[in-house]
Amino acid sequence: MDEKATLTISPDKPQLTRVVCLLLLVYFVLSSLWASNELQTPSFSHLADHCTNTVSPISLDEFLTRQKSLASTLYDLRQSAYVTEPSANGLFFANVSTAQWRLSERPLLLIITPHLKDGEVHPKLSVLTPKFEATRAKLLPIPSANSSDIEWIEWPEEANPYELAVTALTEQKTGGTIFVDGSTRHFIVDGLQKALPGAWVTAPPAEIKQLRERKSKTELEIMKCAHETTLLAIREVHKHLYIGMRESEAREMVATALASAGLSNGGCLTLFGENAALPHGSGSDSLLGQADFALFDCTANLLGYQSDVTRTVALPTTAVSPLNRVIWGHVHITQSLVHRSARAGHPTGQLDDIAREYLRRRGFERYFTHRLGHGIGIEGHESPYLVGGSQDIIKTGNAFSNEPGIYMEGKVGVRLEDCFYINEDGKAVLLTEGVGGMAKSPWVP
Amino acid sequence: MDEKATLTISPDKPQLTRVVCLLLLVYFVLSSLWASNELQTPSFSHLADHCTNTVSPISLDEFLTRQKSLASTLYDLRQSAYVTEPSANGLFFANVSTAQWRLSERPLLLIITPHLKDGEVHPKLSVLTPKFEATRAKLLPIPSANSSDIEWIEWPEEANPYELAVTALTEQKTGGTIFVDGSTRHFIVDGLQKALPGAWVTAPPAEIKQLRERKSKTELEIMKCAHETTLLAIREVHKHLYIGMRESEAREMVATALASAGLSNGGCLTLFGENAALPHGSGSDSLLGQADFALFDCTANLLGYQSDVTRTVALPTTAVSPLNRVIWGHVHITQSLVHRSARAGHPTGQLDDIAREYLRRRGFERYFTHRLGHGIGIEGHESPYLVGGSQDIIKTGNAFSNEPGIYMEGKVGVRLEDCFYINEDGKAVLLTEGVGGMAKSPWVP
Repeated sequence: MDEKATLTISPDKPQLTRVVCLLLLVYFVLSSLWASNELQTPSFSHLADHCTNTVSPISLDEFLTRQKSLASTLYDLRQSAYVTEPSANGLFFANVSTAQWRLSERPLLLIITPHLKDGEVHPKLSVLTPKFEATRAKLLPIPSANSSDIEWIEWPEEANPYELAVTALTEQKTGGTIFVDGSTRHFIVDGLQKALPGAWVTAPPAEIKQLRERKSKTELEIMKCAHETTLLAIREVHKHLYIGMRESEAREMVATALASAGLSNGGCLTLFGENAALPHGSGSDSLLGQADFALFDCTANLLGYQSDVTRTVALPTTAVSPLNRVIWGHVHITQSLVHRSARAGHPTGQLDDIAREYLRRRGFERYFTHRLGHGIGIEGHESPYLVGGSQDIIKTGNAFSNEPGIYMEGKVGVRLEDCFYINEDGKAVLLTEGVGGMAKSPWVP
Repeated sequence: MDEKATLTISPDKPQLTRVVCLLLLVYFVLSSLWASNELQTPSFSHLADHCTNTVSPISLDEFLTRQKSLASTLYDLRQSAYVTEPSANGLFFANVSTAQWRLSERPLLLIITPHLKDGEVHPKLSVLTPKFEATRAKLLPIPSANSSDIEWIEWPEEANPYELAVTALTEQKTGGTIFVDGSTRHFIVDGLQKALPGAWVTAPPAEIKQLRERKSKTELEIMKCAHETTLLAIREVHKHLYIGMRESEAREMVATALASAGLSNGGCLTLFGENAALPHGSGSDSLLGQADFALFDCTANLLGYQSDVTRTVALPTTAVSPLNRVIWGHVHITQSLVHRSARAGHPTGQLDDIAREYLRRRGFERYFTHRLGHGIGIEGHESPYLVGGSQDIIKTGNAFSNEPGIYMEGKVGVRLEDCFYINEDGKAVLLTEGVGGMAKSPWVP
């Protein structure tokens, strides 16, 4: 055996010792870098500069205006109260969603009632809280001009909470209807109805629903920023895709990009090739094939508002089949056609009809298996919806997704989604307009 | 400068080279071990041997029995149907909770109706699903003797789903009441009621609720295992506590113990000293003080069933004040008193009264700020409740928490919680009996 080849570290073989030592050092540095992720994913931190640090959260004044509008609407309708659990509407009117207060079997209710004072309608906000959780409830960031404006109704464990909730309603005599938010659990509605046998506990009418459906300028500024940033994240990730990449790897990369960009709870349905033919995804973790489209349907949150953007993309080296090119083109034209047709005053169902009619003439209608779009704001999907048969009227301030798609099972799925709002002239404006708006092609998302 | 002290690695200093190399090697091995967590937390993997690998999940037969019991009850009540969204009751009757199907604005409903065939009542299970999600819905693990026994009602995007749901009800003529699960969102109840203006859509009566409230042998076996393992995890973590430890550190350790023991979604409210005086916790991350109790209120899941165990503990070196000793003792006696008093046939409210009366005589009633306990099973908190004024009757098969507490804000909080069930003789048996049951002292949990 050649003496120089032995691995024993001894004073006689200083050269070998140095080599082993150097290799260990290199291994250590590389493994540290790997552990700190620096070699695993590209950096997306520059996306944070776009706007997320500069938009303002909803102000106290805006919250008070919302409460006042609700009280005035109740008063005009001659009705008693609006009630919600922590929810999207709880967040809209009183800054309390399930993120601030987890729902349990013990009801915590937000109750708004109208009160006439000096010829003007004022809102009164009452909060029904479990007594033993009152200390924690009073830490909730509920907006009010003075904290003493909030009436706290604490129900002891042995009491019927609904009978106590009714005390918030007895002061005023505007009528016998209590409107409950649509997400309220049935046992709560049932409890309120039994405590108020003479009242009618029911769903809110359009006059109340539109208070949230028609977005304010501040809301639209936040939503623009959320949508622009989401689209920038998709475009950035698009540059780092490669043939042979796993869906899960791309999904993780785009989630990282959304988080780096300053958005919360970001994530994307990430579907390659035929997996994209199932609108809400499949169970497999495919590799990106030479001929595959990659579909990213991304949502994220900024200051309580959701974004929703979908792109179906190809790489410069992707061998896109003629059929796939045609399909992408038809989805793109459908989306543009809808966008140009959207107008205040028209029924929402008409936009769905326009999309379906275009695709019917090209023989693709049967592959467009879902509604055209949904309202968006505090919730990712909220009323009004762009769905066939709907007679809801498009109003200024409404914001919608516009997301036609063609899904051929076992073959291909293409969806393109940009959200828009209706401006004061009654016309549609893209929430992604600030960064160029709709995709130009599968290669230019 | 002494030549031997130089750090330059050269062939002239083989000793030093070896030392540097060895140090690097040691650092590398230690950092690898640290990264793999082996030095950070004690191992709890031996807890997994206790029972979690040996209990059986709910069988197909048991699911079919539940559906049949529900159909028979509906038939006896001369009523039409039971409807639930994915929920705890959805899991109980049809193996579909929100873990399997996330709730959205598009209703997916499980509908059970009774049908008379050859003089016997059979259940029919219908599932209302969004048509464009039907492929995914049909992958749900819904138990049925033959998959063709399930009726799938697919609603297209432009249809009214509730009008289609009604088609599941027209075949039989047992009556005009539709029972909806208490967690169902109001917009769904509203939709069903509008689609069935002649029917009464309402909460289920006691006859239906008790189908889930009275646990089967299989359910109790799973629940015993979940509770025993949870208690073993707390006892194991108790051995690793030290004065000066952070709440967050202990919280993480006990979560690790629960996971290592084979339980899912395990976690504990972990509160030191005066933080434990707020029953649902504070925002601060305290250090364990020389005189502090540590409170662990732990929940975890096994095969769809929840555990709930609370211990308030001290270390051998803790300087427990005389007042704290007295308080711990009173909570312990209250818990024992309740356990000995629990009997089938008595009202649930009576047990709460017994606890409160004992503490009243000792001057501590005002510090016992919550109800005595809750039902437990698929949900951590479920009906029936051990709460003042409740006239619900304790029945064989019921399972409850028994969790008295004394909370003096700014000073101390003590709670002890063991769950029990009512056996066939109508007596209370601890779900933690297999591992010795209740705490003996703050030092022997």
